[in-house]
Amino acid sequence: MTTLAEEVLAGSRLALARLLTLIENEDPQGEAALDRLFPHSGRAHWIGITGSPGAGKSSLVNRLARAFRQPADGSPPRTVAIVAVDPSSPFTGGALLGDRVRMRDLSGDPGVFIRSMASRGALGGLARTTPAVVQALDAAGFDVILIETVGAGQSEVEIARLAHTIIVVEAPGMGDDIQAIKAGILEIADILVLNKADLPGAENTLRSLRAMLELGSPRREAPAENEPPVWRPPLVATIATQNEGIAELMKHIRAHADYLRQSGGWQARDRSRLQTQLEELLQAALLRRWRSSLPDGRYQQILGDLQARRISPYQALHDLLDEADLPQSFQRGSSALLTS
Amino acid sequence: MTTLAEEVLAGSRLALARLLTLIENEDPQGEAALDRLFPHSGRAHWIGITGSPGAGKSSLVNRLARAFRQPADGSPPRTVAIVAVDPSSPFTGGALLGDRVRMRDLSGDPGVFIRSMASRGALGGLARTTPAVVQALDAAGFDVILIETVGAGQSEVEIARLAHTIIVVEAPGMGDDIQAIKAGILEIADILVLNKADLPGAENTLRSLRAMLELGSPRREAPAENEPPVWRPPLVATIATQNEGIAELMKHIRAHADYLRQSGGWQARDRSRLQTQLEELLQAALLRRWRSSLPDGRYQQILGDLQARRISPYQALHDLLDEADLPQSFQRGSSALLTS
Repeated sequence: MTTLAEEVLAGSRLALARLLTLIENEDPQGEAALDRLFPHSGRAHWIGITGSPGAGKSSLVNRLARAFRQPADGSPPRTVAIVAVDPSSPFTGGALLGDRVRMRDLSGDPGVFIRSMASRGALGGLARTTPAVVQALDAAGFDVILIETVGAGQSEVEIARLAHTIIVVEAPGMGDDIQAIKAGILEIADILVLNKADLPGAENTLRSLRAMLELGSPRREAPAENEPPVWRPPLVATIATQNEGIAELMKHIRAHADYLRQSGGWQARDRSRLQTQLEELLQAALLRRWRSSLPDGRYQQILGDLQARRISPYQALHDLLDEADLPQSFQRGSSALLTS
Repeated sequence: MTTLAEEVLAGSRLALARLLTLIENEDPQGEAALDRLFPHSGRAHWIGITGSPGAGKSSLVNRLARAFRQPADGSPPRTVAIVAVDPSSPFTGGALLGDRVRMRDLSGDPGVFIRSMASRGALGGLARTTPAVVQALDAAGFDVILIETVGAGQSEVEIARLAHTIIVVEAPGMGDDIQAIKAGILEIADILVLNKADLPGAENTLRSLRAMLELGSPRREAPAENEPPVWRPPLVATIATQNEGIAELMKHIRAHADYLRQSGGWQARDRSRLQTQLEELLQAALLRRWRSSLPDGRYQQILGDLQARRISPYQALHDLLDEADLPQSFQRGSSALLTS
């Protein structure tokens, strides 16, 4: 496995693609390679892009990738990896619909790497593997990693939260349900984008987004020694298909990176992301180990009792925790269970 | 707590609302009451309603509730609880937008109970508490429980999966992103609904939904003794605001309940739901207990090493598992960790 990690560090895209597949499959070979790569990670700017379906996130991501490759301000080009997280299914073969467009726009540029991840229906699976995939890309040396999620559910928001900078993308007037979702994700936005700003109703939507931003108090990062600087999420209107507003958006992205480095937020987000990732891994590992420590058939028996309503889920939990071959320190009753 | 459970069983709506709040807050008093109530659960028909934002799920749920209360076929009215799961936020105060309409339509009927649940941003929180909330409503004696999710993310799909019968609701032509989401949730549909069937493009959307249904192989429940019956998800066009198509939808809902009882699917879904719920509870409990078994400060130290890239997340995982006061049966190295 040393070889795989070294090939990735040497810039092999083929090795990188193989590594990402191993990580997605939670294969021990992927873990071993990531162990070797991990010291090289921690340098990239992770940018999450989330928001309502139909807001044009894919087009926006493509434009951002191109803007990083050919900066309008004459700064040196930066390498870009795109991770598209997609709740797709065997039904469609897992292809992301925007991929064809994306390929046409960005393929042939060795400074761009694109990876689609499908959720395949397992709760927590993506939450467990996405951070590792992005870490691998980070270690592979990409300057910028764009994490795009399809949809605006809770999982997507959690995935976007991995990032240093979270961009929430909306489009003009998309109905009441969208408004409800908007409220849920607006508060995580570092930068708010109204895309498709040439559509009817754009003025109204801009006005109501601005009002919502003013309602929300500014988010603060972990406090630094003195009074920390405060970031007020800007609202940017774009028309991604015509490349309009992209330069302004890039300006805010750079400003946010500067802000994070000054405020200590860069480290705070890195730490909270690593903690979340570790806890996801721990939960899964503890459950598996714990289950394998139970006598054969006991778990099925408890499930049977549960289904027959002889015991409740909480009683089943306590019985199972009491019976497993657990050490003294684990046997603290329900009080330890309910405080973290 | 005996009192609370008994009040709920005696039909007190106030006690029920209090119990649900305790459960949502993961309060031990809620657990204790649910222990007492659990033997009374397992009778209700759990119906999940999910699908794209803007598809009109709330209106449809209201119509279904009314149809169960006043069956068109002359069958006895059934009591209905509605659980609306909403990714809302402190930003809006957590109010579900459809609630005002819902209240106007359904309030004053003691046979209907409505509960909104907000996700409050914690990954896994809703997945852990929603089943218990629905179980409490089940034990409280409601015949039908409608579980409505806002949005169509992975969490929403998992929540819908709790149900015996899963209804996926779409609306005509909502763009490419919606198509991608559609593919992800279509395969879990027991009944597929095209709502707002009077909108332009309805014919096209019906055609493409029908094509997707034909592509998908029929889902099978746990096999019975002989060849099990097969359920082919029907496609129903509705206009919820005008009550059109609701009678046909009700017919399919009843047919699906009959099918589940004949095929053994009713028990299979109940069992898989209880297993998932137990595993969610176990994961959280094991993580908390495990963390409290570590020496003070050790967890923070590991997080520091992780952030400094001195160790990788997988190394941190193995170190932590090795160091905790874990019994022999837990010390099986990474092979036990990677097989379930």
